[in-house]
Amino acid sequence: MILEIILTTVNPDGSIHLAPMGLTLTEPNAASESMPAGASLAPFAPSRSLDNLIRRGTAVVNICDDVRIFAGCLTGRRDWPTINLSNHNGEARVAAALSYQVVKAAAFGTNSERPRFSCTVVESQQLKAFGGFCRAQSAVIEAAILVSRFNRTPARELTREFEQLAIRVQKTAGAAEFEAWGWLQEAFEKALNK
Amino acid sequence: MILEIILTTVNPDGSIHLAPMGLTLTEPNAASESMPAGASLAPFAPSRSLDNLIRRGTAVVNICDDVRIFAGCLTGRRDWPTINLSNHNGEARVAAALSYQVVKAAAFGTNSERPRFSCTVVESQQLKAFGGFCRAQSAVIEAAILVSRFNRTPARELTREFEQLAIRVQKTAGAAEFEAWGWLQEAFEKALNK
Repeated sequence: MILEIILTTVNPDGSIHLAPMGLTLTEPNAASESMPAGASLAPFAPSRSLDNLIRRGTAVVNICDDVRIFAGCLTGRRDWPTINLSNHNGEARVAAALSYQVVKAAAFGTNSERPRFSCTVVESQQLKAFGGFCRAQSAVIEAAILVSRFNRTPARELTREFEQLAIRVQKTAGAAEFEAWGWLQEAFEKALNK
Repeated sequence: MILEIILTTVNPDGSIHLAPMGLTLTEPNAASESMPAGASLAPFAPSRSLDNLIRRGTAVVNICDDVRIFAGCLTGRRDWPTINLSNHNGEARVAAALSYQVVKAAAFGTNSERPRFSCTVVESQQLKAFGGFCRAQSAVIEAAILVSRFNRTPARELTREFEQLAIRVQKTAGAAEFEAWGWLQEAFEKALNK
């Protein structure tokens, strides 16, 4: 099972880096050599998250339902409020997170270019309740993934998927989802017109 | 904003009826005559949820992340465990809910065939933490909606959407999502072959 989370890592200058990422949860019965049981991360290579994970071996997994953070990180809006975690050597969580886990991350596997990191939870906190499934929120997540894969998908297919997602947003979004959608729509149109 | 929730209502014989439903949240600044500010429900007509709401004027809004409940209710599997709420005259919540709200529901508006009910919260409880966005979960929700609209959408379009959603499930589902997907896939194929 893969969850869409926001990973916060610490940059060399002590500032905090946010990145949307998949957290893979593998059941013991489905575990394999390439994917042992437990939680793991595989940041893109090259990326700041990857550099920070390699350098420090720690990170914070943030469960967020404010989709503006996902859409924002993919459209040049990475400056979301974070809160320093005083017992964790400079690590910080996303201020708007529903919950977070401070994790130790250890590289494993044979893909040295894009290593996968197994995560061991050091601290875990619940902060807020989830409002419930909103189709517009998942449409924003899907559109964010489309934008991140822009160069790997034919334009016609992208346009069709975007239009489908737009309908869900129009029907079910609140203010935050409309804002996030606007950013993705703009990025999408800019990329199409290149 | 519309949230996808499970509504529990009490049948005339005291048993509990579960139904997936949209809960509309309207901000004061977006309120209109047809959709005043606050939370509201519009069950399909005719439906047991509608009958129960009219007869009793109360219901329980369940926020659930077990997508088997959504997929199950649409494929003849409505028998999900519920827990009686002792102070609420026979009302019950979904056992697996992340949170629930007991609501008073008052019909309003001019559509007497499919009335809309404004909801006033009587009691609210947080029970469990949300795991985080999972693309397979939202794919199941979308597929459940497709199945519920089977007669109103061209088969070719349905097949295309189902195939797209299937990819998300294959990539990101856990055991519960795979199970829910199997039920919907079966219902989908049965309907296609009619």
